[in-house]
Amino acid sequence: MTMRKIQIVEVGPRDGFQPIKDFIPTEQKFEFIDRLYAAGLRRMEAGAFVSTSAVPQMADAPEILAHCARYADLDVQMLVPTGRQAERALQAGAGHIAFVMSASPAHNQSNVRRTPEESVEEFALLVSELPSEVKVRINLATSFDCPFDGPVAQDAVLQILARLSEITPAAEIALCDTTGRVTPDRVSALFARAVSEIPQVGGWAFHGHDTYGLGVANALAAMGEGVTVIDSAFAGLGGCPFAPGATGNVATEDLVWTLDAMGVETGIDLDRLLTASLQAERIPGAATGGRVRNALRAKLTEAV
Amino acid sequence: MTMRKIQIVEVGPRDGFQPIKDFIPTEQKFEFIDRLYAAGLRRMEAGAFVSTSAVPQMADAPEILAHCARYADLDVQMLVPTGRQAERALQAGAGHIAFVMSASPAHNQSNVRRTPEESVEEFALLVSELPSEVKVRINLATSFDCPFDGPVAQDAVLQILARLSEITPAAEIALCDTTGRVTPDRVSALFARAVSEIPQVGGWAFHGHDTYGLGVANALAAMGEGVTVIDSAFAGLGGCPFAPGATGNVATEDLVWTLDAMGVETGIDLDRLLTASLQAERIPGAATGGRVRNALRAKLTEAV
Repeated sequence: MTMRKIQIVEVGPRDGFQPIKDFIPTEQKFEFIDRLYAAGLRRMEAGAFVSTSAVPQMADAPEILAHCARYADLDVQMLVPTGRQAERALQAGAGHIAFVMSASPAHNQSNVRRTPEESVEEFALLVSELPSEVKVRINLATSFDCPFDGPVAQDAVLQILARLSEITPAAEIALCDTTGRVTPDRVSALFARAVSEIPQVGGWAFHGHDTYGLGVANALAAMGEGVTVIDSAFAGLGGCPFAPGATGNVATEDLVWTLDAMGVETGIDLDRLLTASLQAERIPGAATGGRVRNALRAKLTEAV
Repeated sequence: MTMRKIQIVEVGPRDGFQPIKDFIPTEQKFEFIDRLYAAGLRRMEAGAFVSTSAVPQMADAPEILAHCARYADLDVQMLVPTGRQAERALQAGAGHIAFVMSASPAHNQSNVRRTPEESVEEFALLVSELPSEVKVRINLATSFDCPFDGPVAQDAVLQILARLSEITPAAEIALCDTTGRVTPDRVSALFARAVSEIPQVGGWAFHGHDTYGLGVANALAAMGEGVTVIDSAFAGLGGCPFAPGATGNVATEDLVWTLDAMGVETGIDLDRLLTASLQAERIPGAATGGRVRNALRAKLTEAV
């Protein structure tokens, strides 16, 4: 591992909060975002512009976006699954959108009722209408494994990646392990091919879940292939409501603890982060994960 | 990862049970050993010959050993920290002893009231008196990190390893991450040096804890350096009573799930193993760990 600096994208306010049934008061979300910012996080997936009837937890995305605007150096990406939702995001002032689609047909149908090809074409149209100053990231869900279809073929993913990178070479692409079932060898293998076969991509990112305890191991595997942007959620919150069994993103504190121990710079204050993560346990209905929070709980409980 | 076969040493009956305060009835230990054997485990650290006043949980080591004798193809290693305890083990019929000592002075003092050098000399004496048919393994605790002294210098570990391998070139040596604080890069680095600088060793093994969630990641790192023997405990039981904060061995089911997914052979039936692990939750005072048991709980609860 020669990498000495990693950018963490805190996805707790989106992927972490999204599956929680009880609506988290918007003011409380602001507080968490403030705490995460204070801990040093400078990039967040802070919310999603999605169907507010299907995902009511994300209904306050415009307010979240407005709140984040107070932090000039915070890179705020807002998730959008369709062109229509991208319009809503732009109207609300989004400067960075994360377009989500799934590599596997069954998951994409379940999520947005489109084939992957239809989503790619929708993305092309979306990009063509996007103001040039708006940054774009692509979250390619089920890049490795689908809750319905099982393992996803590398060639199918690479075909989608090639087409996406033609549409917008500047975009960062996150390969997402939606189910948490991928192993480090397969993370390495797919990124190795993606990096060498599609060199024109703006940047690569990895988004992993910790369902089977491999969240950090998979992130390290991605880093080993040169990936410098890693998604994670404080307190290991998260899971996709449309992916049965996909519990919990890799915990930001687990990732930061590991990178600290390896001498890799993240710019994040672990103690402050842990304080936010301990408070996340109090969110009604939140399922938390990860190990570092428990290992260091005794040391930190006084601070909360 | 080119390795296609890994031998797992199930250390639950020793490292897993040892820190549990309430004595587990010997008959119940037999049942767990039977279940683990039925799941396909063919090597176990089944108990320890240690001070029965300091570690009463291990007082039934002779009975455990006698029970295990019914399985002709089960390789049973019994932990011993001193020559005197090795004598007890041999008298009870042990055919494989695991001599434990710590690389760090403070931990070795705390554990056996000897300097590492004194333990090495005790080991030399022990080996000289050992019948030639008795197999020997060395568990070198705190090979990476000490709960009292912090990170342990590679050179100090390599000096001890060189001396140990002179004493008994045929012995397998397990480098143990006692605190769970080592990261995969350091596991790789120490094994790379050990394998190249001390080539005459009988075999290398890795023993990791999952306190910070890196148990499987560290095992994979060891495997990447050619290590083919990995210790783990069912249900992630364990922790060393003399190592503050060292909670939980890496869970055997997490390791087996990962190796299965990677196409690496272990000879273990995951469902049977998970059934034993779910039952371990009922042991009074047991602290369990790992992720796979929870991820697959729903699928398996009926079987228990």
